[in-house]
Amino acid sequence: MTRFIGVESLARIVHEVGVEPFLVGLAGYLEQDFRRWSEFDKVPRHASHSDLGVVELMPISDAGRFAFKYVNGHPGNARTGLLTVAAFGVLADMDTGYPRLVAEMTLLTALRTAATSALVASHLARPESRVMAMIGLGAQSDFQALAFRALLGIERLRVYDIDPASTAKLVRNLSAQGFLVEAFDSAHEAVMSADIITTATADKCNATILSANMVGAGVHINAIGGDCPGKTELQREILERASVFVELEEQTRIEGELQQMPADFPVTEVWRVLAGIEAGRTSAAQVTLFDSVGFALEDFSALRYLDALTVEDADIAEIDLIARPDDPVDLFGLLQRYRPAARPPKVAASAFA
Amino acid sequence: MTRFIGVESLARIVHEVGVEPFLVGLAGYLEQDFRRWSEFDKVPRHASHSDLGVVELMPISDAGRFAFKYVNGHPGNARTGLLTVAAFGVLADMDTGYPRLVAEMTLLTALRTAATSALVASHLARPESRVMAMIGLGAQSDFQALAFRALLGIERLRVYDIDPASTAKLVRNLSAQGFLVEAFDSAHEAVMSADIITTATADKCNATILSANMVGAGVHINAIGGDCPGKTELQREILERASVFVELEEQTRIEGELQQMPADFPVTEVWRVLAGIEAGRTSAAQVTLFDSVGFALEDFSALRYLDALTVEDADIAEIDLIARPDDPVDLFGLLQRYRPAARPPKVAASAFA
Repeated sequence: MTRFIGVESLARIVHEVGVEPFLVGLAGYLEQDFRRWSEFDKVPRHASHSDLGVVELMPISDAGRFAFKYVNGHPGNARTGLLTVAAFGVLADMDTGYPRLVAEMTLLTALRTAATSALVASHLARPESRVMAMIGLGAQSDFQALAFRALLGIERLRVYDIDPASTAKLVRNLSAQGFLVEAFDSAHEAVMSADIITTATADKCNATILSANMVGAGVHINAIGGDCPGKTELQREILERASVFVELEEQTRIEGELQQMPADFPVTEVWRVLAGIEAGRTSAAQVTLFDSVGFALEDFSALRYLDALTVEDADIAEIDLIARPDDPVDLFGLLQRYRPAARPPKVAASAFA
Repeated sequence: MTRFIGVESLARIVHEVGVEPFLVGLAGYLEQDFRRWSEFDKVPRHASHSDLGVVELMPISDAGRFAFKYVNGHPGNARTGLLTVAAFGVLADMDTGYPRLVAEMTLLTALRTAATSALVASHLARPESRVMAMIGLGAQSDFQALAFRALLGIERLRVYDIDPASTAKLVRNLSAQGFLVEAFDSAHEAVMSADIITTATADKCNATILSANMVGAGVHINAIGGDCPGKTELQREILERASVFVELEEQTRIEGELQQMPADFPVTEVWRVLAGIEAGRTSAAQVTLFDSVGFALEDFSALRYLDALTVEDADIAEIDLIARPDDPVDLFGLLQRYRPAARPPKVAASAFA
């Protein structure tokens, strides 16, 4: 049988572990997997486009496990109360090819993105960082704050969003979680004196959420909003001044802030920092930038973590996704096992007439 | 919510419709979709290989629907009682990106493969065909016989398998279904006087299940066993004598019997026959060959058929695969909705200290 972890199950598991301990545990799995980067079979995502959006499959595997995430992107969904980005995923055994679990990944992606951001920041931000500015207060922002508190001890937030409703949502949610949240009327005010700046806006265009004059020495920028072709948040001059870190270089050059820069613009893949091969921050005055677009490895880690948390959880539902015939060559016999008992079998005729 | 159609649900649906009416209905959907071939976004499958097998994702879409099948291939699974090939799939809306249903596809693939074989044979075999020889009596074979009876009226079977247990299984199953089945000690004897020859052996090598001297004038060959690189069933001379029909030419040249032939060996894609653009059989003496490897379009049709059969079926389970927040920008609020009631919220602190 295959475990099924729906939205309600995932939420229950997260609350049982605790949201911040869950993020810390997830960051541990992410770090383990980033450190063994070369063990993964990494391929481009498959995308199917329509006039209204895109549906993507993001597969990845190592010697033991195969995972994929299904994720859509439909900006118009918001008009009908649907999610613009929703996701689910599967973790399978490479030894047998059988799926181990099917899981919702809308919430799980928000959690893994936040855990990835905080994990990377724990290697790149100044150790004494205490204040984070957040520009763009949509669905992802609350999780970012929780992950930065869990991994870096950030409790003070200076926030801004163009939409007052999103700002009110975040202030309400995070104040209730014990954060010290101050909302501002502009991004310019929000970022003043911040140690870390997280940008997570939703505009599908090349916007300038953050300009170079807003970024002081020593700041770490966690840029998660620019994540597809034609969508960026940072002024080009910021990248020229910063040390830029990415997940998978070839993907970020197409999808990230990096699409503004020439093809030979130097970047460092974060796995090299996590593995201790390259330095992260090298001086207190350095501006560091994590140009994050989201990568299949992070979904793999999240599913692997969820697998470990649920493998002995008797409350997790199991679904009959894969047939279990008594005899593998007798699939028809399996089908007949479910024949309604009331219907008598046809008369047998075993001779060739 | 997303419909979930597991093995038990699928079996119930098939029996409610009736196995042969289900195959006829499925063939109707297949024919509709093959006839509008150019409307589909057809891409190569994604494969992840390990020492023990392969895991594949097969996506396909048209303007309205996206579908993919997950399928493994692990020859060693049989040793532990697992299926060597198991599958599941998803059908989604292109307009919203939301999944409509998640379904088992081990049984469904056997049904769609059989329906495809019979649909194609109904255009290529001589109309007066009455006797089918079957070489290779594994999991697929029973379904093939049922589809050929449902669509072509075939009731007489001459069968052979190297494994007596598989032969006994098929004779038992199909005799109970009212077929006239005669088992032989060799493929050579089984194919004598047959109007149609179906080959569906499992050997993972270039074998010669059928040689040219075994194939008489006017025969239709339904070759479904040669379906991956390095696996073929027919002697090359048969292809030279026959008119060869394929699903997707570029895929069959790599995976099918066609891998034995030069790159310019002429073939006809079956959609052109189904759409009336090209002729199928043109003379009673012609040998026709359907070199079938299985294509994502067939899975799309099967899922679309299953969707139509279950869209108003109150007995189908629904799963909470996709989150439904009250406010799309408040995913954290959704998570908190599931917080155990017993745990009091932390003290609010809304001022920036």
